Amino acid sequence: MFDLYVVTDSDLSKGRTDAEVARLAYEGGADAVQLRMKHSDGREMLKQAMEIRKVADEFCKFFFVNDRVDIAMASGADGVHLGQSDIPLEVARDLMGETAIIGISVDNVDQAIAAAEGGADYIGIGSIFNTSTKPDAKQGVGLGAIYEIREAVDIPIVAIGGINRGNIQDVVRAGADAAAVVSAVVAQDDVKAAAHELRDLILKVRPHVRPEDLDYGE
Amino acid sequence: MFDLYVVTDSDLSKGRTDAEVARLAYEGGADAVQLRMKHSDGREMLKQAMEIRKVADEFCKFFFVNDRVDIAMASGADGVHLGQSDIPLEVARDLMGETAIIGISVDNVDQAIAAAEGGADYIGIGSIFNTSTKPDAKQGVGLGAIYEIREAVDIPIVAIGGINRGNIQDVVRAGADAAAVVSAVVAQDDVKAAAHELRDLILKVRPHVRPEDLDYGE
Repeated sequence: MFDLYVVTDSDLSKGRTDAEVARLAYEGGADAVQLRMKHSDGREMLKQAMEIRKVADEFCKFFFVNDRVDIAMASGADGVHLGQSDIPLEVARDLMGETAIIGISVDNVDQAIAAAEGGADYIGIGSIFNTSTKPDAKQGVGLGAIYEIREAVDIPIVAIGGINRGNIQDVVRAGADAAAVVSAVVAQDDVKAAAHELRDLILKVRPHVRPEDLDYGE
Repeated sequence: MFDLYVVTDSDLSKGRTDAEVARLAYEGGADAVQLRMKHSDGREMLKQAMEIRKVADEFCKFFFVNDRVDIAMASGADGVHLGQSDIPLEVARDLMGETAIIGISVDNVDQAIAAAEGGADYIGIGSIFNTSTKPDAKQGVGLGAIYEIREAVDIPIVAIGGINRGNIQDVVRAGADAAAVVSAVVAQDDVKAAAHELRDLILKVRPHVRPEDLDYGE
């Protein structure tokens, strides 16, 4: 589904817009970008979303919107990513339809099973490590949570939280299908190079890499 | 369309939930309640919205959601109220369809004409007076803005901002079809009595009160 999943954060983006960061991330090899703007008005968020949608189409990549189902729908995003305190999965599904990709944040097995049974298309597990990107995030759940949840559910797992070049291979070895990063990409001087390096690190340790996977970025 | 329009503010509600305040406001004679929760997660906002929807149905009154088109749709609200920095009117219309009631905040004639030409069902003009409810609100536009905009557009006008028992008749005399209040209702010890008094004050100065209007609250 995706290998490297980049989540935006305009506070960390060194003056670049989220759409500019998204373009660089896609160029570097990110398969998915999630627009997360917790403090923006709807109009500005929609503007960024519509720009990222265009860029994602150029690269044939995935684009998700955090939290705001309305902005996901209005911008033509591939789907929405929802936390445990956002609109419930079933409500978002009713609004968006069966073809939307809906991801759910979880931090334990029960939440993961509930998401899978509720029809989530993927889950985001986190924070895996302690992180400064989300100041309200709890203590990292650790790699053990990935192993546990990998045993419990069959849907794709995206690990998130404190992931960087030093530990990204660990989360894949633990069973994550994809790694989501924030500052390790969006806060870098060279966003494209950072994304490229992280994706390479993922592919090197992916358990069953098929030849066609290595040509993924078309 | 409506006479008294109450906008929620959980910070001012003395520990009562927005749904509890809405019930009391409807009981007192409010025709419309708008759920405004600028700092809440989507799940909590949706919960309040679904409760208010039920209460509004009991009383056959209007229910609107501020800003969040997705929550308006998911809760079955009659419509959405959008500010100038929220999702644009035409985008909300595409998502919600022709039957949704969409209100747009304006503070000058140009914005009012744009909203009316864009298909808004009503406009909210404000802030009329200076207000402490919206700390980011600019200096009040005054009653003159109602006169001016009344000349320029035919759609219903809801005046908002700093309106209370002392000035509510002035905004109606200036041409507003309805008055929206926040603290003058939601912050009162007796929400129901406050709503009742304000609605009575509106009806006493409405230019062309027909007998059936006086039996409005069924």
